[in-house]
This record gives sequence, C-alpha cells and structure tokens, in this order.
Amino acid sequence: MQISRRRIGLVLLVVSVMLFLPSVAWAEEPTAASNATALDTVWTLIASFLVFIMQAGFAMVETGFTQAKNAANIVMKNLIDFCSGSIIFWLVGFAIMFGVDAGGFIGTTGWGTTGTFEHLGLKIPLYAFLIFQTVFCATAATIVSGAMAERTKFVAYLIYSFVISAVIYPVVGHWAWGGGWLSQRGFIDFAGSTVVHSVGGWTALVGAAMVGPRRGKFGPDGSVRAIPGHSITLGALGVFLLWFGWFGFNPGSTLSGTTPDIARIAVTTNLAAAAGAFGGLILPWLRFGKPDVSLTLNGTLGGLVGITAGTAAVSPLGAVIIGFLSGCVTALGVEFMDKVLKVDDPVGAVSVHAFSGAFGTIMVGLFAVEGGLFYGGGVSQLITQLIGVVAVFAWTVVTAAILFAIIKVTVGLRVSEEEESEGLDIYEHGIQAYGDFVLRGTQVH
Amino acid sequence: MQISRRRIGLVLLVVSVMLFLPSVAWAEEPTAASNATALDTVWTLIASFLVFIMQAGFAMVETGFTQAKNAANIVMKNLIDFCSGSIIFWLVGFAIMFGVDAGGFIGTTGWGTTGTFEHLGLKIPLYAFLIFQTVFCATAATIVSGAMAERTKFVAYLIYSFVISAVIYPVVGHWAWGGGWLSQRGFIDFAGSTVVHSVGGWTALVGAAMVGPRRGKFGPDGSVRAIPGHSITLGALGVFLLWFGWFGFNPGSTLSGTTPDIARIAVTTNLAAAAGAFGGLILPWLRFGKPDVSLTLNGTLGGLVGITAGTAAVSPLGAVIIGFLSGCVTALGVEFMDKVLKVDDPVGAVSVHAFSGAFGTIMVGLFAVEGGLFYGGGVSQLITQLIGVVAVFAWTVVTAAILFAIIKVTVGLRVSEEEESEGLDIYEHGIQAYGDFVLRGTQVH
Amino acid sequence: MQISRRRIGLVLLVVSVMLFLPSVAWAEEPTAASNATALDTVWTLIASFLVFIMQAGFAMVETGFTQAKNAANIVMKNLIDFCSGSIIFWLVGFAIMFGVDAGGFIGTTGWGTTGTFEHLGLKIPLYAFLIFQTVFCATAATIVSGAMAERTKFVAYLIYSFVISAVIYPVVGHWAWGGGWLSQRGFIDFAGSTVVHSVGGWTALVGAAMVGPRRGKFGPDGSVRAIPGHSITLGALGVFLLWFGWFGFNPGSTLSGTTPDIARIAVTTNLAAAAGAFGGLILPWLRFGKPDVSLTLNGTLGGLVGITAGTAAVSPLGAVIIGFLSGCVTALGVEFMDKVLKVDDPVGAVSVHAFSGAFGTIMVGLFAVEGGLFYGGGVSQLITQLIGVVAVFAWTVVTAAILFAIIKVTVGLRVSEEEESEGLDIYEHGIQAYGDFVLRGTQVH
Repeated sequence: MQISRRRIGLVLLVVSVMLFLPSVAWAEEPTAASNATALDTVWTLIASFLVFIMQAGFAMVETGFTQAKNAANIVMKNLIDFCSGSIIFWLVGFAIMFGVDAGGFIGTTGWGTTGTFEHLGLKIPLYAFLIFQTVFCATAATIVSGAMAERTKFVAYLIYSFVISAVIYPVVGHWAWGGGWLSQRGFIDFAGSTVVHSVGGWTALVGAAMVGPRRGKFGPDGSVRAIPGHSITLGALGVFLLWFGWFGFNPGSTLSGTTPDIARIAVTTNLAAAAGAFGGLILPWLRFGKPDVSLTLNGTLGGLVGITAGTAAVSPLGAVIIGFLSGCVTALGVEFMDKVLKVDDPVGAVSVHAFSGAFGTIMVGLFAVEGGLFYGGGVSQLITQLIGVVAVFAWTVVTAAILFAIIKVTVGLRVSEEEESEGLDIYEHGIQAYGDFVLRGTQVH
Repeated sequence: MQISRRRIGLVLLVVSVMLFLPSVAWAEEPTAASNATALDTVWTLIASFLVFIMQAGFAMVETGFTQAKNAANIVMKNLIDFCSGSIIFWLVGFAIMFGVDAGGFIGTTGWGTTGTFEHLGLKIPLYAFLIFQTVFCATAATIVSGAMAERTKFVAYLIYSFVISAVIYPVVGHWAWGGGWLSQRGFIDFAGSTVVHSVGGWTALVGAAMVGPRRGKFGPDGSVRAIPGHSITLGALGVFLLWFGWFGFNPGSTLSGTTPDIARIAVTTNLAAAAGAFGGLILPWLRFGKPDVSLTLNGTLGGLVGITAGTAAVSPLGAVIIGFLSGCVTALGVEFMDKVLKVDDPVGAVSVHAFSGAFGTIMVGLFAVEGGLFYGGGVSQLITQLIGVVAVFAWTVVTAAILFAIIKVTVGLRVSEEEESEGLDIYEHGIQAYGDFVLRGTQVH
Repeated sequence: MQISRRRIGLVLLVVSVMLFLPSVAWAEEPTAASNATALDTVWTLIASFLVFIMQAGFAMVETGFTQAKNAANIVMKNLIDFCSGSIIFWLVGFAIMFGVDAGGFIGTTGWGTTGTFEHLGLKIPLYAFLIFQTVFCATAATIVSGAMAERTKFVAYLIYSFVISAVIYPVVGHWAWGGGWLSQRGFIDFAGSTVVHSVGGWTALVGAAMVGPRRGKFGPDGSVRAIPGHSITLGALGVFLLWFGWFGFNPGSTLSGTTPDIARIAVTTNLAAAAGAFGGLILPWLRFGKPDVSLTLNGTLGGLVGITAGTAAVSPLGAVIIGFLSGCVTALGVEFMDKVLKVDDPVGAVSVHAFSGAFGTIMVGLFAVEGGLFYGGGVSQLITQLIGVVAVFAWTVVTAAILFAIIKVTVGLRVSEEEESEGLDIYEHGIQAYGDFVLRGTQVH
C-alpha cells in the first residue's frame, strides 16, 4: 500500500475521537480514556490502602519504643485518632482543604464532602480522592501520639485528634494543595514533608512541651536519662510497615497510574530511606562508638520524611543525598530535643517528622532538577520553600498551643503522678497489655 | 456539521477492516477491551492478596487476645485452616459453590476447578476468580479458631477446617453468589456479612458451645471471670491488618477495577470501621466508666463486618450509622455471650462475625439507597434480607452441630484438663511460644 | 449488520492507535498501547512493594526463631542489608546484571543505572524495572542473616551485604535473566528459586559453616541441642508476611499486568505454599508424633521457594506436588544440616532457600507443562535445570567462601564468647530489645 499508514491513522484517530468521545453511551464500553481513568482510580485506591497500613506502622513504632505498661493506651490512641480523623475529615476537613477558596486561606464549600468539586478538575472519582486525602490527614494526626506518649490523658488526646483533623491540618493542606496562597506561589511539597509530616511534627513538639516530660526523664541536675522501649522488634516491624506504606504515600500522590513518574518516585523514595538509615547509623556510630538501633530506625524514617517533598522533583542521586542528610538531621534532632530544648519526645517523632520534614522541604530548593539552585535555577524556589516551611511552622505552633492550652484548662492534659507511675493501661483502660508476662519492677506472681 | 457522522463511521469501518484484515499480530496488541479485562484481573488479584493478609490479622488478634501458653497452637490453626482451605476449596468447594446449579441449592460441576464455567459469565480469568474466592472461603474458616481457642484439639480443628471449606461455606456461597435460591430472590450481601462472616460466626458459636468453656471462665455460681489476653499490641496489629485486608474484601468484590463503585465502597468501608470503633468505645465507656481496649478493637471489626453486606448499596452516612450500630452490637454481643448464652468465646469472634454480620445484612433492607425501607423502597428488601439471614443461620448451625458431634465421638473435640492447664503448646506441639520470657504462674529459671 | 457505533468506534480507535504509535504527540492522550504500558508499570511497582514487605517477614521470622538477647541485632542486620543492597545494586549490581553482555558471563554497562538499556527491550520504565530488581536482590541478601544469626559481627555482616548485592547475586542474575549463558541455554527459573533463593541459601550455608555453630548447639559428643526461638507468634507473622509478599514475587515476575498468566501464577503460588505447609506438618508428625510448629512454618516457606522457578510453567496439580515435596525437603533438610553437615542454621534458612530452591528448580524439568519429562518433553529441560543448579551452587559457594575468608582475616567474622553469651544486643548496640520483660536466665530487678 502506498498510502502512508501514519496519515490514515491520524485521520482515523481524529474522526474516532470526534465521533465517540462525546457519546454518553460510551460509558458502557471501555475506551482508552475510561481505562486511563480506571487505572488512575485503582492506583489511587491501592496507594490509599498502603498509606492506611502506615497506621499500624506508627502504632508498632510508638508502642515498641515506649514502656510495656502504656502499650494498650498507645494503640488505643493510634486507632482512635485514625477513626475520628476519618469521620471528621469527611464531614469538615475535606471542605476546608478542598472547598472553593476564600482569600487563599481556606476552603468554604463542600461540607460533608457533598456538592460540587468541579474546581478541582479531578480525573478520578471524588471518593477515591477523599479516601486518599483521609489517610493523609490521619498520618499527620497520629504523629503526635508518640511524642506525647506515656503521660497524656486519653480524653485529651481524643479532643486533640478531632481538632487537628478538622482544622489545623486542612488549613495547611488548603494553602499548599487546595489552591491556597502557597500553591499559588509555586511551593513544592509533592507528598507532604511539610503539609503532612511537619504539621504533625510541630504539633507534637508543642504538645510534648506543654504536657511536660515524663517523670524521671530529666534529672534535677538537667541530666538526660534514657527510658528504653519495651520491644525493639515491634519498633522495627513498624518501620518496615511505614516504609511499605510510603510506597503509597509518595508514588500515590501523583493520583495517576498512567504516568511514568510513579516509577521514578518509587526509586527516589526507596533510595532516600536506605540512605537515611545510613545517616542514622553512621553519624551516631562515629560519635558514640556503637551502631545505635533506634537512631538507625528513626534515620530511615527521617530519610522517608525528607524525600517526601521532592520525591518527584529530584534525581536518584539527589534522593540519596537528601535521604542521608535527613537521617543525620533526625539523629542530631533527637539530641537537640533532649539537651537543648529539654522536651521529652519518647519516640523521636519531632525529629523524624518536623525537623526532617522541614529540612527535606528546603532541600527541594537546592536539588529540584527543574528550578533548584544546584541545577542553575537560582534562589527563587529556595526562598519559596523557606516561606512555606516558616508559614506552616507558625500556623501550626500557634494553633496547637491554643488547642492544648484549652484542653489543659478544661479536661486536663496530663494524667496523675500515680497513674503515670503505675501505667496508663491500668488506670485509663483497666487492662494490662502483657498480662501473662513478668515485667521488671513488678512482683512475680 | 452536516455530514452524517454515521456515514463517516461506516466509511472508516470499511477502511479499518481493510487495514485490519492482513494483520495477524492483532491478538498480540492491546485493545481497550483487553486492557479493561487486564485491569479487572489486576484489581481482583491485588484484592485477593489483601484478603490473604487478613489471615495474619486473624492470627494476631486471636493470639493477642488469648494466653501465652497457647499462642503457638493458635497460629498453627490459623495457618493450617488457610492451607487446607486453599487445597480443598480448589478441589471440591469451588465446584459446589460455582458449578452448574442443581435446584437452587448446590453446584454440581467443575470438580478440581476444571471444566467449563461459562455459565458464570466471568470477565476475568477463572484462576483470578478462584484465588479471590479461595481467600474468602478461608476467611470464613479461620473465624472459628478464635472462639474455640485454648481448649480444642489440633486434629479436631484440622478435620473441621476441611469440612467447612469443602461443604458448609460453599453451599451458602452457592445460594447467595453462585446462582442459588437466595441470589434468585434478590438477597443483597455484596461482600459477605452473612455469606462469609456469619457462616464463620455461627459455626464458631456452635463449636464454642459444644467444646465447652475454658476451665475457670465461669465460676460455680455462674459468675463470669475475664481471662486476659497476652498481647494487646499484637491484637491491635491484627485489627489494623484486618482493616487493611478489608480494602480488598469489599472493594475487590466488584471483581472489576473499571467501575467507579470501588472508590465509594472504599469510603463506606473505612467510615463504617471508624464508626464501629466509636460504637465499641462509647457504649462500654458510658456503661462501665472506662474506654475498653478490646471492645473498641472488636467494635472496629464489628463495623467492618456490618458494612460488608451493604458496602456498595448504602451512602457514606448510612455506612457511618451501620458501622456505629454494629460496633454497639459487637460490644453488647460479648456481654450476651458471657451472661445469657454462657458460651465462652475467648476473642469475641461470635459477636464480631455472627451478630454484627447478621445485623449488617438486615440493615441493607433499611439503608440501601435503592430498595431500602428508609429510601422509600418498602419492606420487600428487608424481608428478603431476613430470610437470607435466618436460612444461613439454620443451615450453618445444623451442619456445624452435626460436624462437631461427629468429631466429638470420633477423635474427640477437647484436650485433657492437664493439657488445658499446662498449655496446648507444650502438649500438642512440644514447644513454648515465648521460651525466653518468664511468664506469670511459672517458675523463674 | 447490527454492529453498534460503540464497537465501530472501538475498532477505529484501536486501529488508529496501532498506526499512530510512533508519533511523539501521542503521549498526551491515553491509547490502548499507553494504557497497557501503564498497567504493566503499575503491576510491576505494586509487586515490588509486596516483595519489599518480605523484608519485614524475614525480620520477624529470624527474630522470632532466635533468642531474645539478639533480637535487636537481627532486625538491624535485616534493615541494613536492604539499605545497603538498595544503594549498591543501583550503583553497581544493576549494571552487572543487566548491562550489555560480555561473554555470557557478566554485564558491563550502565553503572549507576545510567545510559541506555535498550538491549533489554523493556516495555516498562527503566526505574520500575530497577525497583523490582532491587527488592529481588535484597531478598537474596537478607536470607543469610538468619543462618548466621546470634554470633556474627555486625560490621562483618555489613561488608558481606555489600558484596552479595554488588557482585555475587548480580552475576548469577545475569546468567539467568540478563541474557547470560544460562538464559541462552533455556534454563527456566521464572521468579528465582535458584537465582534468588539458592544464591541466598548457599551463601548462608557457607557463612554458617565458616562462622561456626553457636555455643551449646552441638554437644561434645556430637549431640544436637535445640535452642528455641523467643516468639513463635512473630515467627508466624513473618511467614504470613512472606507469603503475602510472594504474591508480588511470583506473579510480579511477569513484569506485566496485561497477561492472564498472572492469575494462574497466583494460584500455583498459593497452592504450593499450602501444600508445603502440609509437607512440613505431616512428615515430622509421622516421624516424631507431634505436629511441629517451626517445621510447618518452614515447610510453608519451602513450598513457596520450591514453586518459584516453575510457577508459570506448571499446572495447579503440579504446584501442589512440588509444594508438598518442597515442604518435605525443608523438614528433612533441617535434620540433614544438624545431623549430617553439623552446620548450625538457627532459623532453617539453608533448608528453606537452598535445598528447596534447588529441588524446585529441578522439578521444573519434570513438571513443566511444556517441555517437562512427565509431559512428554524428554530429559533435555531436566538436564538444563540441573546444569543451572550446579553452576549457581559452584559460583556461589566459591565466591562466598572467598568473601567470608577475607572478612574473617580482616575485621573478623565472629563475636567474642562473652558477647555471644550475654547477647549481641548489649555488646554491639548497647540496647536490650525487651527491656521491660524479665527474661529467663537473668536476674529479676
């Protein structure tokens, strides 16, 4: 045949699309367009499920790194913050985050996730978007339980978890992802180093500071005492589950399974986590002479948090550098919390999520292949990143301080000395997490 | 445009056919139809994998909520019921469930999952359907191990697990999903509140009643004593894993990744679980003054079981209501089992799976957006739901009673008093699950 | 003709796509071809994530089956071998495995996973292929930690894990999957019974032999003493996680979500695992009178390892046979290691991965539906399988022996007697994995 096959193809394509795309009846038969939408939906949903299992990861990390007498209380807080977050974000938070913008600051429509969200231009069903955003919101919320563990009242935590899911997180989310002022400025936080992790981390910092340190954490002379966790094994399991979930967190943030970007994002995520582990391994090893387990585990998480902002914007090499440095930031941050800020964070949540989250967000200004300083992009992106980090810090610290102050003067933030000493499990829930085991400091029956 | 679009289509068709004819390679090239089939297959497979991990969830919940001395026995039962179920369902159960219908009661063709299943009209490969149905069957089977834990012989359990996977479950499955009489009546049980969970739950009730309570559970005066579990942490991990797996269980039951329904189903599933947790949290809190950990965890599972029937039929608000009430039903069911039925169910399996499963199935008659009583649909659907629940209850209770009676008089159902007291791990398997730990009631070596 | 417009449109669209594929402009709109590529990519990525979580499975199996005093050390090794593997495979291993072939022995291009890999003819993005291959490499690496557990220096393990990921594994991978001499001979190892599991398993054998048995494992009279694990529950959780991950390992090895093969592979994988459990259950039960927990768990893994080579080539019935026999091989292998080889493998890694891996690879020569001896294919395939198994054994044993010998004479392979006795956690990492629990053989504080 002499006729150019490409030309025939072009004509056929144009006519086919003209004839068939507008047809409503098309919905019944699959098309390339409907298949792409379906694949994007499937991808977003599976990513949501992976992010969900991060809740189990947080629960295991937080219980593993704290004392056996408070384990039931911690898993309850981890469970309930997800449950309250799921409901309140559906009712209120989603509208604030993704409703029609008012002044670049807040969404104002779509309460109960109803009404039109056409302004979002979603390619996937609204409910797929909702479930993905719900598990993100719950990630921010659950970060706080670890930092405030072992001395915070259950009911106080319940109230906190409603407010962060309803207001504190969704407002930041609106700024950066809902069409608000930060997104208008070109702020890059692809999957939420700042939007999710720093919001949780800064809230954790405020909460941990306001509830005060656990008894015995700081000596009268200002010395720092380690209060070891009760199961390194479960803590490590938690880290693996979080890493697993992060493969939904970062690649899923494309909301699309039809872009090759998802493969590169999976690679940068994985490399940064691996490098972060080495940051948490090597730095303390050089300084203290031993490979520290909890800092290595936290370094891994720090690497994951650090890459989350730039995961789609940096090269694999950039990911390794950001991940490694984030692991170092996490390890140094733990010392900084203990020795400088004198804030007791039993699981290192502030270092992992706030410090590494802020650090990683700023690094995008340096390492972004398009627009980063190291790639000839000037300082413009870097400045935008700094503005975003500072603004989110300010908003979160102020609102969290108000929230915890109100809780403190109403239902109270902290359990009694007796309860803290005996364990929150018995006092708050009338249960022992490990009833069959003989624990140290307890009688052998 | 004045030119008839149909005529253009016709011309193009002819050209296309002309172009198409010589090409042999066509079968090899993807089409919109083949891509849709592939996506449906991928979705069903991934959902199967998620449902599989529920086995780990059950294992963790059941061991966590029981005593350390029986932990190895329980994980063995959880493992082996899945293994025997996988093989026997492939050989026998699948044919009973999905073979050519005989009298609305049973399938009669396709033993060994061979032969033709064209009557099913599957869009996905038969093996994708088989693996999905296999993990569903195993879910029903594994529910029973928790309720009969800590006093049932391993070999008795092995026999039980073969029979439920070969006959008891597949017959119900045929009624509701295999073209049997319940499906012909319009019974709605989208993902198996009744077909899977109640079948497991009612069998668990019969088994727990027939094996009798653990020694010390009920005092001579009829008082109820709590026998606490040995790891709340693992129990909570199990709940998270089950919730995670439920994202395969419910959305996967579409067998299709090319329908937008999967997104709504994910949302109703998640909201019902969250609301179920609050049911299990608030009701006991109000009654007993403390937020109970195991009832909250079981309430979460109750919410999941409750929504499973109507997950594709109700609105998000309906899901929250059904989930919350199912959580309450679960919490009340635990008391009902202890105080009224006097049946010892160590992990609350009957309440979670039988009671909440039946409740959730009935609720579809009220809350289904199409056909539900509250949406103007009359009582017709509600009656159908009740018929289904009662019929499945009757079938399961009768067959399970026969099965356990036969086991009782042949190999025996219950271990010796000595074995129960010392622990099944040592007697049945010659092992201690936690050999390095000092347990209460044991000597310190 | 009754042909509908939809169908016409479909045909036209597909034809257009076929003709128009070379055009760059197409990238913006989805086509059947681009959707197929996207689905293949999504499938490969999700499979990668599932294989990743096998790391958690290995960590739980290995810690659960060993002593509490070494738990932190083992999770550290499991974490770090994945991290070092991720980085070194990206930098070096990938090029050796998939670079342009030199002499059928080794790849020589693409260091740092850069440059062109057009010779691979990949349908998916290079990075999707990279992440999938990375988690495979890490699986081979992490097998060794279990066999060498409880007496190997952390720094020695760190060096080992770099070398296996950089050289030992990638060379074998090149032979079988990277266009090397084994693939040219028609060697069938679909997902790596030999390439992944035997490489890890033979290395584990050499390492365990060279580091020597744990103190007290073998009596002076040659008697074998069992050193029980500290958490059967976590061991079982690990097995479930590994099985879950295997659904990525085997079906994902198609690198394609658009082939119906993935469904059959999922079924053969599942059936072989189930049958493997029965192999590990029944054989020791008959011989020793009790259903053994750890052999049943290891039998399950043996079934999975055994089917991995032939998962795409055998029938479901063949899978059941191979799985069952592999479970038996694993159980017998544990005895063989203890009584004949006198090599101390605390978790049974060599039996599971080396013996069952070799066995399963050979079985392909018998059971492959196309080319297997039992299906009239003659002995040709069987001989090829044997050649592959022997060659990989020889390469791995020699290189591993050289590697561990160098480590032994430089940094040293084994910890001191004191350290082994007190536990590696305290000496190597200054931590106790279960600080709140009273352990046997320790003082009650």
